[in-house]
Amino acid sequence: MRMRRLLVVLVALTALLAIPAAGCAPETPSAEGGGSAVTPAEAEEPEAEEQPTAAEGETYDFVLQLSAPIGTPYGDDVKKLAADIEGASGGRITIAVKSGGEIVPSHEVTDAVSKGVIDLAQPNSGMDVGRLGPVAYLFGSSGFPGGPNPMEYFAWFYQGGGREMVNQIYQDAGYNIHVIAQITGYPAELLCHSNAEINSVDDFKGLSFRTMGPWAEVIESFGASVVTVPGGEIYEAAQRGVVDAFEYCGPGIDWTMGFHEITTHIGMPGIHSPMSSNMLIMNRDEWDALPSDLQEILRVAGEAHSLRDYLHVSTADAEALLKYKEYGTKMFVLPDDVQQAIVDRSREIALQHCAEDELYKRIFDDQMEFITMWKGRTDLLQPKYSLYTPD
Amino acid sequence: MRMRRLLVVLVALTALLAIPAAGCAPETPSAEGGGSAVTPAEAEEPEAEEQPTAAEGETYDFVLQLSAPIGTPYGDDVKKLAADIEGASGGRITIAVKSGGEIVPSHEVTDAVSKGVIDLAQPNSGMDVGRLGPVAYLFGSSGFPGGPNPMEYFAWFYQGGGREMVNQIYQDAGYNIHVIAQITGYPAELLCHSNAEINSVDDFKGLSFRTMGPWAEVIESFGASVVTVPGGEIYEAAQRGVVDAFEYCGPGIDWTMGFHEITTHIGMPGIHSPMSSNMLIMNRDEWDALPSDLQEILRVAGEAHSLRDYLHVSTADAEALLKYKEYGTKMFVLPDDVQQAIVDRSREIALQHCAEDELYKRIFDDQMEFITMWKGRTDLLQPKYSLYTPD
Repeated sequence: MRMRRLLVVLVALTALLAIPAAGCAPETPSAEGGGSAVTPAEAEEPEAEEQPTAAEGETYDFVLQLSAPIGTPYGDDVKKLAADIEGASGGRITIAVKSGGEIVPSHEVTDAVSKGVIDLAQPNSGMDVGRLGPVAYLFGSSGFPGGPNPMEYFAWFYQGGGREMVNQIYQDAGYNIHVIAQITGYPAELLCHSNAEINSVDDFKGLSFRTMGPWAEVIESFGASVVTVPGGEIYEAAQRGVVDAFEYCGPGIDWTMGFHEITTHIGMPGIHSPMSSNMLIMNRDEWDALPSDLQEILRVAGEAHSLRDYLHVSTADAEALLKYKEYGTKMFVLPDDVQQAIVDRSREIALQHCAEDELYKRIFDDQMEFITMWKGRTDLLQPKYSLYTPD
Repeated sequence: MRMRRLLVVLVALTALLAIPAAGCAPETPSAEGGGSAVTPAEAEEPEAEEQPTAAEGETYDFVLQLSAPIGTPYGDDVKKLAADIEGASGGRITIAVKSGGEIVPSHEVTDAVSKGVIDLAQPNSGMDVGRLGPVAYLFGSSGFPGGPNPMEYFAWFYQGGGREMVNQIYQDAGYNIHVIAQITGYPAELLCHSNAEINSVDDFKGLSFRTMGPWAEVIESFGASVVTVPGGEIYEAAQRGVVDAFEYCGPGIDWTMGFHEITTHIGMPGIHSPMSSNMLIMNRDEWDALPSDLQEILRVAGEAHSLRDYLHVSTADAEALLKYKEYGTKMFVLPDDVQQAIVDRSREIALQHCAEDELYKRIFDDQMEFITMWKGRTDLLQPKYSLYTPD
């Protein structure tokens, strides 16, 4: 078990250093590296008029392109999803999982699925901000300061009508896709790697911080200078002193990037990104043409991976925190007043979007009502005292 | 939507009043009411030597008996699971869901599955304490004070090797079952319904409290007088003043029982039972005889319901808390020192089991190491400040 884990880490490390990484937070299109040649999908697409049924036993060979390098937990989790689907369908569905950038650029997978260039993908909704507007950051994306944690988002998505709303919004924006489930639902990320603690809002002043998205807006308003660096170039940028602090993913992935070799501190909690999750999407025509039992297998397997991937990466993150401790990396926790200030500023930015964007307001208000109710139960009923409280 | 929910509540209420309920915490065998006539299962069991393959398209009509009345969230969730399995298998598997007690007594389902009287069941592991010993309370059962919350338990079960350990322990105890997944993983229950607050350990002294299992041990050591009353008889017992306080399930189910009509207070958090979850089990011979694609459908659907049922009942619980508030039920929160005292006493009892029972010690220690590590990440990285914090 331990040997296998070590191998996985080594493979992941190799892959991450070799490929410009898309990272947990969506990259801006200009930051996307090589491997962007568009090639035809390998999938045998069923004829629309054929309407195959389960009894015919037709097989479907699909291509899914990741939005991250394949040698990461994203790759592991989606390959496991593909294996689950192949197993449950008795081989009637196969899914070839491709690395981010292998067929289309990582941030363009939603468009590629919509056009049928690839059959399936797992985009972070934040990648679609260009076409959807800021509402894209409300769909389980990484980098929403003070936003929902994975279970709060899953509750809204699966029990609060969220999945239907997300599907409608993508359809209204002209995408020919079906959002099947929410997968790779990773938990809170590391706030930052740095060489000094952040103990006040003033400490952000003049800080050169690598990040993007809504968190960039928050810390820019605190006086930080935001730097855009692709995931695969962070290590070198930090080494050269181009950035004072940076965030990438959670500790499990970040450990494999070797950031502890070039910085002395890690910051917590992940208030800038309480979750980081991706959608499992499929070309809508292909989805509609599938027999209903295969649709159900895709849906149920996708839903199973909402939990499985969360547990998998949470476990890897927990293990990595022990490695940071053992390595001697200094850990600091943002003071309560700084955390509250971040949430307050994030709310101001969200309310500004609400004032300017009817769609954003509709979703933000809906989530606010549902998640506040849902969180009310957690806060009141889940005990904070436990047999398992770490020393 | 609201109309449908109301109907569900009415149906649930009717069913709960008509049938002696098994309740969330396992009942003692003597507490089990009627409906215990053992009848042959309706399942067509495949011949062991047949070893059917997917290509043959053989169908399997299984019977699953609940350990709770069918008109409860347990029934709703397991019927949805059955529908998911039927849909994903294209009708090759059907599962007839029976109410607790309909074929065998609710607390005897594990034995009934082992003997092939029924094909599938969803026992709370605590029900098997008679044969497994106290280790049974470590398998996601309700009523483990200071124990894991659902995600902590799921992490151990799915990522920490727990599922394999649970299967081995049931096999070693002579059960001919396969533990497929952990389903109906409900969150923390209501601490109690009562007519007064509990504000100190001394307040338990002389209190007549309806409960069972490890929580009974804890409060008996505090001087409470534990009363055993079947779920279906609590309402009347409380009305007649036989009990001062009682716990049953979470607020969603408890609301349908009408307990707010006969008591003035509800207590929180659910430190006596941070989760209440059931296993999805199948007769091992039948499991082994299934084609591998159908095994995968059962496994993946079971895993999907780990999350789905948790989200479903957490949402119902959150909604019910609003109903209690609106109804005017007084809510109180156990002071921190009382919560800590409960955890400390629960640890003492667990360590006593460890000293007397090698199997208990092996599992308790394994969970302690894994869950403490896992919780370390949550405590450090998941922010407590949020946009959705209720007023």
